[in-house]
Amino acid sequence: MTHPLFTKHEDTLQKALAAIETRGYWSPFSEMPSPKVYGETANADGEAAFKFHLNRTFELDQPATQETVGAEVSPFGFPLGIRYPKADANTLIDAATRAQRDWRAAGPRAWIGVSLEILSRINRASFEIGYAVMHTTGQAFMMAFQAGGPHAQDRALEAVVYAWDQLRRIPADAHWEKPQGKNPPLAMRKRYTVVPRGTGLVLGCCTFPTWNGYPGLFADLATGNTVIVKPHPGAILPLAITVRIAREVLREAGFDPNVVTLLATDPNDGALVQELAQRPEIKLIDFTGSSQNGTWLERNVHQAQVFTEKAGVNQIVIDSVDDIKSAARNIAFSLALYSGQMCTAPQNIYVPRDGIRTAEGPLSFDAVAGAIAGAVQKLVADPARAVELLGAIQNEGITQRIDEARKLGRVLAESQSLEHPAFAGARVRTPLLLQLDAASDAAQFTREWFGPISFVIATDSTAQSLDLAGAIAAEHGALTLSVYSIDDIVLEAAHEASIRGGVALSINLTGGVFVNQSAAFSDFHGTGANPAANAALADAAFVANRFRVIQSRVHVEPKAVPA
Amino acid sequence: MTHPLFTKHEDTLQKALAAIETRGYWSPFSEMPSPKVYGETANADGEAAFKFHLNRTFELDQPATQETVGAEVSPFGFPLGIRYPKADANTLIDAATRAQRDWRAAGPRAWIGVSLEILSRINRASFEIGYAVMHTTGQAFMMAFQAGGPHAQDRALEAVVYAWDQLRRIPADAHWEKPQGKNPPLAMRKRYTVVPRGTGLVLGCCTFPTWNGYPGLFADLATGNTVIVKPHPGAILPLAITVRIAREVLREAGFDPNVVTLLATDPNDGALVQELAQRPEIKLIDFTGSSQNGTWLERNVHQAQVFTEKAGVNQIVIDSVDDIKSAARNIAFSLALYSGQMCTAPQNIYVPRDGIRTAEGPLSFDAVAGAIAGAVQKLVADPARAVELLGAIQNEGITQRIDEARKLGRVLAESQSLEHPAFAGARVRTPLLLQLDAASDAAQFTREWFGPISFVIATDSTAQSLDLAGAIAAEHGALTLSVYSIDDIVLEAAHEASIRGGVALSINLTGGVFVNQSAAFSDFHGTGANPAANAALADAAFVANRFRVIQSRVHVEPKAVPA
Repeated sequence: MTHPLFTKHEDTLQKALAAIETRGYWSPFSEMPSPKVYGETANADGEAAFKFHLNRTFELDQPATQETVGAEVSPFGFPLGIRYPKADANTLIDAATRAQRDWRAAGPRAWIGVSLEILSRINRASFEIGYAVMHTTGQAFMMAFQAGGPHAQDRALEAVVYAWDQLRRIPADAHWEKPQGKNPPLAMRKRYTVVPRGTGLVLGCCTFPTWNGYPGLFADLATGNTVIVKPHPGAILPLAITVRIAREVLREAGFDPNVVTLLATDPNDGALVQELAQRPEIKLIDFTGSSQNGTWLERNVHQAQVFTEKAGVNQIVIDSVDDIKSAARNIAFSLALYSGQMCTAPQNIYVPRDGIRTAEGPLSFDAVAGAIAGAVQKLVADPARAVELLGAIQNEGITQRIDEARKLGRVLAESQSLEHPAFAGARVRTPLLLQLDAASDAAQFTREWFGPISFVIATDSTAQSLDLAGAIAAEHGALTLSVYSIDDIVLEAAHEASIRGGVALSINLTGGVFVNQSAAFSDFHGTGANPAANAALADAAFVANRFRVIQSRVHVEPKAVPA
Repeated sequence: MTHPLFTKHEDTLQKALAAIETRGYWSPFSEMPSPKVYGETANADGEAAFKFHLNRTFELDQPATQETVGAEVSPFGFPLGIRYPKADANTLIDAATRAQRDWRAAGPRAWIGVSLEILSRINRASFEIGYAVMHTTGQAFMMAFQAGGPHAQDRALEAVVYAWDQLRRIPADAHWEKPQGKNPPLAMRKRYTVVPRGTGLVLGCCTFPTWNGYPGLFADLATGNTVIVKPHPGAILPLAITVRIAREVLREAGFDPNVVTLLATDPNDGALVQELAQRPEIKLIDFTGSSQNGTWLERNVHQAQVFTEKAGVNQIVIDSVDDIKSAARNIAFSLALYSGQMCTAPQNIYVPRDGIRTAEGPLSFDAVAGAIAGAVQKLVADPARAVELLGAIQNEGITQRIDEARKLGRVLAESQSLEHPAFAGARVRTPLLLQLDAASDAAQFTREWFGPISFVIATDSTAQSLDLAGAIAAEHGALTLSVYSIDDIVLEAAHEASIRGGVALSINLTGGVFVNQSAAFSDFHGTGANPAANAALADAAFVANRFRVIQSRVHVEPKAVPA
């Protein structure tokens, strides 16, 4: 049973299958916001589409009350003024349940085809979504476009192809024939029906609403589930646009659009989310956010599969370098990018207190710390260029955390407010870099300080640095680990530490790749092997339990003739 | 990185991969206890090996206290008198942790190769294990040999091949090269290391210690985990023999045998198990047993992946038949086989109160019920033949349950004690068949009455029968559903009911296949889609989360030359 949308996108699907097998570089979505790819007027059209949303009610043809919700404020300094139709959670669950039957019966090729068509429409809306991501998360436009657009689409496609890679292994039917010696064989025809779990709940975050939200949404859809998308109250618009596109495609393909619905909320929606998450109809939950909320879901939701990405402590171990300047420049970029508001941004930088080796001779701890601090300050020296890297701080909690962190240790690089040349009210802060000591400050550096806050930590030795890195990742979680060393034995020890900590390792990054970056189809984002995430984006484990197989069997005539 | 044991068994592995793809009949292990296959003296040797275990301490070279435990009693009427070395759970966890490092580093091909070698040794011990299964579970010998031996080995191999099917998809390394326009491409070498979760805990049951215990044990081993096997206190011996073989193979292959250890216990070990299950080192739990214990694990164990098979209500819907005799004979066999002590045995048989259609005209409810009761009574009329089908009742709780059930409704077939011609003290009971009514007895038939207890339930119509079947499976769990109908519309409705109930369907079984039977590589045992089990044996979801992937990446020279 094929489907026209499956056929339409089958070539992309085949390439994606090859990509997850070889894990080399591949993407069908252009990451450059180029007029040649997206059309001459794409940027202007996208910006206009974004501006059209402001200060009005977002149109979404789904079951809703007469009320509206929404209180998004751009981190660049203005309220979005967008109101969303308020939906009743029970009504959405009922609508999803009604939509389930035909969607389920359509089968894997329809689920995959519709998912891929939604993605291709989302790709065309990359500029509109880019501006929406920018003005909800605080990402500078280029990053908002890339991470919120094509890179998020890559992660979505990755989830779809992993789903297909598992679904395609289940035969629709089988002929089973068991020999019975001299008697005729027993023969049965068996049918295998792939059955989705039910309704999925996607709980979005306020920093990467699409990048972190799409994998769960598309893994659910591609395995035949219905989905309720509950964005973070601070970043609704990117997912609202996404849901609207998904519903358009579903409707055009002849399905009940309530296969995907939006649950927009006002701030402080915790109680609502907890109640919804425990509803018996909710069988899958994909969550990105705080450890507190994620752990609550893991421990209290028993009727659903729960996939979480939570807080972690990302770390860099500096043992030795060829050239401190290029290492410091690379690290500084990682600290400054989106003001450290990435789940993959480094926080703890371990440097032996006796200094390190370099190709140009030994370098003291202070010199290493100074090189990193200097590189940060150089990166943000020109406010007009800096804001295109830093973006804006997503919320006041983060600026307050910077103030709190400032008291922890000696300031190596001060966090400063910058004026944004285009947005007068933008909340822009440069990175804060502090000096701590492994001997006395563990209580501080073993927890996440989310935002542009990082520590250069004096250790007794690289051995201690690696011990800390492995142990902290294992106990407190981590999405990234980075090591700088010119010594193969240290690199092998770093590999062992990454295994102990269950964390992905980057080695000697000094060029155009940064530890924060994770490429779909090649880099597993998260491992599922430490507390920062109980799953990876994406792998078989991320999709295999989103569906089940129901079989039937009936006797048929044997094909074989007994001897 | 290959391994000699992987190479040795690669042919079997390839055949098993083909089998799970096509899901036709296949098994490498002969289910007939034939001297031609297993050797002329295999039966006598196996029985002697079993008898050698009686009334002495089981030798197991693993960390242990000086004490011993064990209180197994054969359901055929004599205490086994076997004592097992008592192990301290903390000591076993420490030993598993020490054994983990080299086992983990050996990699997937070693895990698979060692697993397959263990299985091939276990196959050679099928008679010894068969007698051990017989005298712990109460299964008659032929069933104990087949289900406890080759069929259990099939399920183990199935878990191994599903693990390999996922493991082989993860490349050891990759070359990633991203174009940068006119600049040189970014190029990285990536390494992917498969990392097991840690230590698995297998919690065995007293009716199918090997068939239900092997899948978790071998799924854990095949994905590089260490395993503590905790048998049910009533059925230790089959798993003790298994663990001893596994340790021999591990030692011969150069690994620490504490990769697999046995935790034998005295009866009433609940508190010990709960404490062990929550230890942070335990990352995987495979449980077969009561809903109470399984649900406790699902709700209270947060640090481990928990796979459970629990209670359920298996059902048969009789709508219409060609020939009532062959249907009744097939059903009666399913009720009598191992005295209904199979998790797949039917309990509720729905028949419209107005009777059914047959090829020979209409048949009243009473005639249908009478045909089934008569077929049961005929099957067990000759005690000497009956005991080879019924086996013995595993424990006194089940005989008490028969007495309790007797009060529930009109007795269609009485449960009688039979004398076993070979074992004077054997606890043998024939099946109890009662008549209930859908209108008044739901409180009774919506729960599991484990043992030789079943109900013919009068319903208003086949539509009501199917409604009940789907709803009860969905709410209370079920592993099997069976339907008899000569009407294609009813069969399609039964298929829909099986989807609603998340339960496997068998259609018109009148010959040599019984609803209780589930064939590895073809039938999914359990679906994971209703409360009877949160996983299926076996599929991708059963293995994919037993390991994680840790990657590293480092810059290398680009292979491509920029244009």
